[in-house]
Amino acid sequence: MKMYVILVYDIGEKRVGKMLKLCRRYLNWIQNSVFEGEITEVKLKAMVIEAKEIMKQEDDSLIIFKSRQEQWLDKEVIGMEKNPLDTFL
Amino acid sequence: MKMYVILVYDIGEKRVGKMLKLCRRYLNWIQNSVFEGEITEVKLKAMVIEAKEIMKQEDDSLIIFKSRQEQWLDKEVIGMEKNPLDTFL
Repeated sequence: MKMYVILVYDIGEKRVGKMLKLCRRYLNWIQNSVFEGEITEVKLKAMVIEAKEIMKQEDDSLIIFKSRQEQWLDKEVIGMEKNPLDTFL
Repeated sequence: MKMYVILVYDIGEKRVGKMLKLCRRYLNWIQNSVFEGEITEVKLKAMVIEAKEIMKQEDDSLIIFKSRQEQWLDKEVIGMEKNPLDTFL
């Protein structure tokens, strides 16, 4: 079962690089600490397990919004649109 | 017409305080630079106009996901759940 997710994290500096790499393996980067994409439930579960290993649960936060249909969400981008294909820090 | 929105921003340090204040007037803060809430289309438009005045369009980015029904989205929070009622920086 595929779903569309928006993922946002707030992760300590020491761990953020690992988290970024992990999320990019599964989803599309759209802004600083924000990702979106289609993913299966199984893959999402696998990602969350890996994320928990990276995170310091008492300091870090990861929020995942899930929906069954992407078209149900409208997205409005204001200002600079980052290109997920660009290299970045 | 009310809708449910998720708002994420990536704003230069000099302007981020103003943006935070603005977003908190309209939505609920849920993570670092992430807000959610129910809002009317009219109010959202007003907020976006104010946001554009704060933003430096070539550096800053604001993404708004909109949906007609909140219950359509599942939210999963991993790690620390920030209390939007807490005071914070």
